[in-house]
Amino acid sequence: MEYEWIGLDADDTLWHNEREYRRGRDLFLEMMADYGIDEGDISLLDHIEVKNLQHFGYGAVGFAISLVEAGIELTGGEISSREIKRLLDVSKDILNAEVEVFPEVEDTLETLSDSFRLIMITKGDLLHQRKKIQASGLSHYFLNIEIVHEKNPDTYREILQRHQVLPSKFLMVGNAMRSDILPVLSIGGSAVYLHNELTWEFEEAERIHLPPDRYFEIHALGDLPGMLRVDKSGTSPGT
Amino acid sequence: MEYEWIGLDADDTLWHNEREYRRGRDLFLEMMADYGIDEGDISLLDHIEVKNLQHFGYGAVGFAISLVEAGIELTGGEISSREIKRLLDVSKDILNAEVEVFPEVEDTLETLSDSFRLIMITKGDLLHQRKKIQASGLSHYFLNIEIVHEKNPDTYREILQRHQVLPSKFLMVGNAMRSDILPVLSIGGSAVYLHNELTWEFEEAERIHLPPDRYFEIHALGDLPGMLRVDKSGTSPGT
Repeated sequence: MEYEWIGLDADDTLWHNEREYRRGRDLFLEMMADYGIDEGDISLLDHIEVKNLQHFGYGAVGFAISLVEAGIELTGGEISSREIKRLLDVSKDILNAEVEVFPEVEDTLETLSDSFRLIMITKGDLLHQRKKIQASGLSHYFLNIEIVHEKNPDTYREILQRHQVLPSKFLMVGNAMRSDILPVLSIGGSAVYLHNELTWEFEEAERIHLPPDRYFEIHALGDLPGMLRVDKSGTSPGT
Repeated sequence: MEYEWIGLDADDTLWHNEREYRRGRDLFLEMMADYGIDEGDISLLDHIEVKNLQHFGYGAVGFAISLVEAGIELTGGEISSREIKRLLDVSKDILNAEVEVFPEVEDTLETLSDSFRLIMITKGDLLHQRKKIQASGLSHYFLNIEIVHEKNPDTYREILQRHQVLPSKFLMVGNAMRSDILPVLSIGGSAVYLHNELTWEFEEAERIHLPPDRYFEIHALGDLPGMLRVDKSGTSPGT
């Protein structure tokens, strides 16, 4: 298998992201605890989050609005307007958070870009993604950057067709089974699942029937060059 | 002057948009009236809207969050959580509103596309803009569709460079002086201001020093082919 293009997810693959959402969620849990609502009761939040994806897509703002809606519903409208303002501000906390690139990412991209064409494929709010990409200082490693609103098989098919890449020559790397791995495998591409300690529940999917010749796992992006047998000089012994 | 490319704004140029925001604003005014706050006191809303652009960009969600923040502040926190929920729902009303294309738009695009390369240049939320473009049924008239987060001189310069269009060959059409007209004139292009009865206050700018050979005005998109002297057969007598 000789890949030509490598697709890389961005949030939680190249830099921290979920961490900020986790902080917002923790704040929400603390607030709800004051109303006698404990963690077991807040499955409503997940439900509202998923429902709001159709309106707002993936991103900080839809998340904050979901916190507010869940807070109003769970407290029977008792939540104060001051608390609501604080929950809405979670969106600004996330949007303005420092972009912290994971260790080894820059070296890894440097190495990979010698042997492969790199394309960033990230989903979410256009403005926020662009801001993070710029702040990361990583954009020059990528031939193309695609900001999409949903990562499904059609999305990947369209991107590969536009760049005239055969699925058999494409390897996608990301931390989200549902967005980065399964749709790529379904169109005949290959995928590397990056294990990440913080992964949103909704992203978890059963790892059944994954093709062993096209599905791989790593625990850090720095493991990728080794897996692909490319070293810093850019030579690939082939597989 | 022989234009080759015509750029068209979308919201309030091709289809109704501002109308939905106006409805949200009216709802907000009614709510505030119940607290004894009248229209003269709500300049704070404009201030919050402008401030929130940096976080959320242009779009329904930032608007709804601004309504909530202004409502909390103007009522000294007295606004109820039920009312806050209703204001947040304004974003969903806007996002899910039917796309109503203005009269004559389809015929006009049909005529223009015989003689010019058309490019849609629209700002705002990626997901929402894509949804409206698809619902409008107009995308096949455009060689390219650009969804940007801010329409400033750099944005237009970058788009023209990417498509290898000289500013002197480019005419931008839109209803927003600040976004569609001034930045295009500033980089040496031409622009047609489409008068629109509903134009957001923030969009108004003084029409001073506008170059008469590159700045034009129309009152309906249907006037554009006549102004450019192209008819339905696609012939242009030249100027």
